[in-house]
Amino acid sequence: MSVHLDPHRYLPADPAQRKIAAELFAGIEKLPIISPHGHTDPAWFAQDEPFEDAVSLLLWPDHYLLRLLYSAGVTFESIGIAPHAGNGAVVEEDRRKIWKRLAERYYIFRGTPCRAWLDYTFLHVFGLDRPFGPDTADHYYDTIGEKLKTGAFRPRALFDRFGIEVIATTENSLDRLEQHEAIAASGWNGRVISTFRPDEVTDPDHEQFASSLTRIAELSGEDTGEWKGYLRAIENRRAFFRAHGATATDHGHATAQTADLSQAEAEALFAKVTARKADARERELFRAQMLTEMARMSVEDGMVMQIHPGCWRNHNDFLYHRFGRNIGGDMPMAGAFMGQLKPLLDRFGNNRDFTLLLFTLDETTYSRELAPLAGHYPCLKLGPAWWFHDSPEGMRRFREWTTDTAGFYNTVGFNDDTRMFLSIPARHAMARRVDCVFLARLVAEHQLGEDEAHEVAAELAYRLARRVYKL
Amino acid sequence: MSVHLDPHRYLPADPAQRKIAAELFAGIEKLPIISPHGHTDPAWFAQDEPFEDAVSLLLWPDHYLLRLLYSAGVTFESIGIAPHAGNGAVVEEDRRKIWKRLAERYYIFRGTPCRAWLDYTFLHVFGLDRPFGPDTADHYYDTIGEKLKTGAFRPRALFDRFGIEVIATTENSLDRLEQHEAIAASGWNGRVISTFRPDEVTDPDHEQFASSLTRIAELSGEDTGEWKGYLRAIENRRAFFRAHGATATDHGHATAQTADLSQAEAEALFAKVTARKADARERELFRAQMLTEMARMSVEDGMVMQIHPGCWRNHNDFLYHRFGRNIGGDMPMAGAFMGQLKPLLDRFGNNRDFTLLLFTLDETTYSRELAPLAGHYPCLKLGPAWWFHDSPEGMRRFREWTTDTAGFYNTVGFNDDTRMFLSIPARHAMARRVDCVFLARLVAEHQLGEDEAHEVAAELAYRLARRVYKL
Amino acid sequence: MSVHLDPHRYLPADPAQRKIAAELFAGIEKLPIISPHGHTDPAWFAQDEPFEDAVSLLLWPDHYLLRLLYSAGVTFESIGIAPHAGNGAVVEEDRRKIWKRLAERYYIFRGTPCRAWLDYTFLHVFGLDRPFGPDTADHYYDTIGEKLKTGAFRPRALFDRFGIEVIATTENSLDRLEQHEAIAASGWNGRVISTFRPDEVTDPDHEQFASSLTRIAELSGEDTGEWKGYLRAIENRRAFFRAHGATATDHGHATAQTADLSQAEAEALFAKVTARKADARERELFRAQMLTEMARMSVEDGMVMQIHPGCWRNHNDFLYHRFGRNIGGDMPMAGAFMGQLKPLLDRFGNNRDFTLLLFTLDETTYSRELAPLAGHYPCLKLGPAWWFHDSPEGMRRFREWTTDTAGFYNTVGFNDDTRMFLSIPARHAMARRVDCVFLARLVAEHQLGEDEAHEVAAELAYRLARRVYKL
Repeated sequence: MSVHLDPHRYLPADPAQRKIAAELFAGIEKLPIISPHGHTDPAWFAQDEPFEDAVSLLLWPDHYLLRLLYSAGVTFESIGIAPHAGNGAVVEEDRRKIWKRLAERYYIFRGTPCRAWLDYTFLHVFGLDRPFGPDTADHYYDTIGEKLKTGAFRPRALFDRFGIEVIATTENSLDRLEQHEAIAASGWNGRVISTFRPDEVTDPDHEQFASSLTRIAELSGEDTGEWKGYLRAIENRRAFFRAHGATATDHGHATAQTADLSQAEAEALFAKVTARKADARERELFRAQMLTEMARMSVEDGMVMQIHPGCWRNHNDFLYHRFGRNIGGDMPMAGAFMGQLKPLLDRFGNNRDFTLLLFTLDETTYSRELAPLAGHYPCLKLGPAWWFHDSPEGMRRFREWTTDTAGFYNTVGFNDDTRMFLSIPARHAMARRVDCVFLARLVAEHQLGEDEAHEVAAELAYRLARRVYKL
Repeated sequence: MSVHLDPHRYLPADPAQRKIAAELFAGIEKLPIISPHGHTDPAWFAQDEPFEDAVSLLLWPDHYLLRLLYSAGVTFESIGIAPHAGNGAVVEEDRRKIWKRLAERYYIFRGTPCRAWLDYTFLHVFGLDRPFGPDTADHYYDTIGEKLKTGAFRPRALFDRFGIEVIATTENSLDRLEQHEAIAASGWNGRVISTFRPDEVTDPDHEQFASSLTRIAELSGEDTGEWKGYLRAIENRRAFFRAHGATATDHGHATAQTADLSQAEAEALFAKVTARKADARERELFRAQMLTEMARMSVEDGMVMQIHPGCWRNHNDFLYHRFGRNIGGDMPMAGAFMGQLKPLLDRFGNNRDFTLLLFTLDETTYSRELAPLAGHYPCLKLGPAWWFHDSPEGMRRFREWTTDTAGFYNTVGFNDDTRMFLSIPARHAMARRVDCVFLARLVAEHQLGEDEAHEVAAELAYRLARRVYKL
Repeated sequence: MSVHLDPHRYLPADPAQRKIAAELFAGIEKLPIISPHGHTDPAWFAQDEPFEDAVSLLLWPDHYLLRLLYSAGVTFESIGIAPHAGNGAVVEEDRRKIWKRLAERYYIFRGTPCRAWLDYTFLHVFGLDRPFGPDTADHYYDTIGEKLKTGAFRPRALFDRFGIEVIATTENSLDRLEQHEAIAASGWNGRVISTFRPDEVTDPDHEQFASSLTRIAELSGEDTGEWKGYLRAIENRRAFFRAHGATATDHGHATAQTADLSQAEAEALFAKVTARKADARERELFRAQMLTEMARMSVEDGMVMQIHPGCWRNHNDFLYHRFGRNIGGDMPMAGAFMGQLKPLLDRFGNNRDFTLLLFTLDETTYSRELAPLAGHYPCLKLGPAWWFHDSPEGMRRFREWTTDTAGFYNTVGFNDDTRMFLSIPARHAMARRVDCVFLARLVAEHQLGEDEAHEVAAELAYRLARRVYKL
């Protein structure tokens, strides 16, 4: 790719379609960014300290980059990531050398979205317009380092420059939201809200389940030794998050299994689970019941509920034991929603005030399960192409496989879902372009009017996310 | 979309491909319609009464429309659909208001085939050429109402105008086919035949299974208290349907599971099933055995056998209990054919006089199961992209995922499968166009000669259906 | 298709993309053929005898052709294939009549890769430039027959003419590799190597398992009556194959299941298996353990390991009993790798000197399992679109569904996997063209630079296969 990113990138070669797509994109390119689901660090915005350097800002936080480098034989130690227990491991400390290692392997990212995000970020954020590679690695490293020292590259300045209207971070149920409080107290007008993610108190297999129940009891003043107190404690934390701006919850269960137990059954199960006497099936049943409880709470308090099942965390045992979580060994699993969601849908599926967003890592569920479900149940909406599918190809398949059955209005626009703050403009721009390409084809094939396509483009780029997430 | 439907709708933007596709389509556009599988009401053609109004003709019979309206928060009561037990429900009775509710939500159908079918029907059947929406809803309602009162809009007149050569309706095994007899007796030359669908006598879980066995005994004069008499009773009804023009059977089993029991095993299973002592596994085994029995009868009497497994009926409990069947809560299930069909194929799979048509709601079976099976077993043919996949995208994927392994000649052309009579021309036109687009790409990429493509286009649009269904 | 194969076949209609694709293809068209995985007969090259005739050379060895002819009602007897036990079957013996039967049904191959391979072979290998069909069948039969008698059509001459740099055949673990020795002894400079495929000694369900253990003991001088001797015997055969040029092993297990038993467990299981006391679950566990043992041996001896699970062999019982294996009744099965490979990956997945190539017949695993696995584990690479997916559509889907997550550099170029020697140039040309089309789109959409695309095209056409297979 020319590092001079062409204004027509991602747009189809056919001149008629390209023209329509370009016009559609021109109409939405400058819309503010709504980032309703992601993993940036609120401390950046609370403290507004300069970012450190290219490696810690652009390489380490991006598990997409780490995966593919690792697949190419690059060890984590050689790019500066230290094992938990050092064990005498030799860990590269020279950031410039690490940066060069990325540059040397940059060719392996051809055809991947990582490449597109980085090229965009290099050019649009840092003005770097020579091809990135071994020959330019030093120039890149130095330029980025110098710019990061300037005021224009502080987190809040970038937030403004990126045109972010609102960004949601994600915190666990025990978080005091001190960074969010600091932001609010600072007088800065950027809108950074939290998302309530309570896996540590809803999943008995979470390593901190027991301690989290103790801690949430302290925070809420409720007795988590029994079922009703436990539920009240969670409701209490949800209210705390709402008071700090949160409008949504997020649930990282491995499956979409839900359940609808009687109160007596639920109480007995909770007792067994907290006594550590529940077997694997019962622990899964508990998680299933908790998804339905979360739905019930959402019906009551209006928080938008998000689930993204189908991730096999820490598939690579060696890496997990050496480096811990989130280091590139997470994998997709076969997805299933149709029977799994039924207990929850039987209770709340026809509720028009409830919103449940579904994400998947198994594209076969798009047309077989997700679009038919979202095209029927009033509460359901489809999250965008997620994670491994956050790419031009993945987004195209999402639209092609869901639109005929669910339409556009049961989807929710784009989520960047990233901890790579600087890539946010690149990711939103990619999603906007790819959606415009899809719409342009419908227009070129006379399936949709151009005026309608402009309207839908704005929905997908901006309005749907704001409306569905209640922002 | 311009309501002035462009002559190039669905055709690709690339001028070279568009030109070829347009030429292919011009060669088949006027071919008569063969509608070998559908759900229109034979009484329309028997009695030739005027249709009532836009709402009862265009909205209520189309579960595609109902689904997406429901997903957008529209209640069925608000569009005039009454619950079974009224329960004091307020049901909208003003047809004009109901029609306006559709118009107000018409934007949610953007990108869906419903939109394309309705636009086509509005323009080509009713001559309505202003965009449909809240502003034009009254105009549409009035114009349609007036036209429906005229002779040109009676069922038989439309049948002729649509160029229908033959249409198959679907009746259960107990149907007396009185409407078909009335059509035959009327002297009208339209060809309306039935399809034999015996789910109520082959599925022990059907709510009318027991009473249907009694009734079919009366109709056939056979003793359905024992296995052989039961089979003879079904054979008798098949003969009755054949005598009224039927050439095909249709089977709505939830799965494609087949079995090949010994006669003694089958007799014992039948006794258990009819005594209501069979458990769920045995009832599934009975259905499985009955598919193989239906295949055996087809080998004997020449009727084409159709199965379309993979539907989870009435997924939405609330709606099912309130409104009953077929009201939008049907969902796809994961499909599987490879092992399921083996018992049947081991018996009849190599029989060259037997035809078994397969449909699916799980597109992952196209390339993994259906195309390899149909590209090998002489008896198997693939039905078209079905139901949720009856769309330009769905049809394109069907061709892309089956043609390399099964070719064109193991497929059977298009089925509209609809109860929405007025949408039949729209649906066939869409299928013809999309097939021409697929063929045009092969021609433009020099994979197929243009003369060959014309020949295949005519096969897909007309000849295959007529030949395979023995029409 | 014009039998004058257009220079732009498979290239997109859009002029801009077509131009780029044509330029990319021009840059790689003449690269030598690397055929690292296939089923040609080494005796052809050892003896260099003339091929017999069109039927035995072009029809019988191609199970793709046999499948589709059979689906169209053509019996194997009518095209000269005799059942195992004759049973008085009438088998057509007139080769010219058989050839005509193919010509009469040639239209059923429209849209399939078989058609493209044959057309290419007819034109480029035999110079036959009139459309193939009933009218030209005799001309084709005679011309091919005459040419095959000439020196230019002997196996070695064709090998040179096809530009084959190296071809790998496949032999079982007991093979003496006498043909490969004869080739080496002949002084001919063509490179024909073997591939080690030991299913008969690793699969207890193989009909020759017991006898193969006896035979491999004789060949290796090891005691296969106990676990360690058995493993040494296999290691001995691998060394024998390596000494004859083999660089890879191939494993045709039905599933990708692996295991990692302790030595004591493995010894006990081996004893049970060889005593024929193992049940189905234990036999599968044995196969699973053997995949991990094969990986261990590959780590030690450097042979590249290939697995292609997911084939249901001999699905058609009637044909299997009448004609035996490999006669068109093989079918795909649903694939699964994520959990299945974990035991093996836990042991060797992070080893940078080990290479494990994965193939699948279930395309749903591309984006859900294979690309994420290959985009992370250093040892894993993805084999090309295989068997039923060895087609322009199949190859396109492979790139679209794997590139964003695995990139290009975790794939290994093309394998023809064929026993149809004369189709090898056609198959490689197709793969090269389709990859250039994919790359051309990335260039046209400004996702990849044209210089980069040229480099990647050469990797996919030639370099990756040579490098990954260590050729």
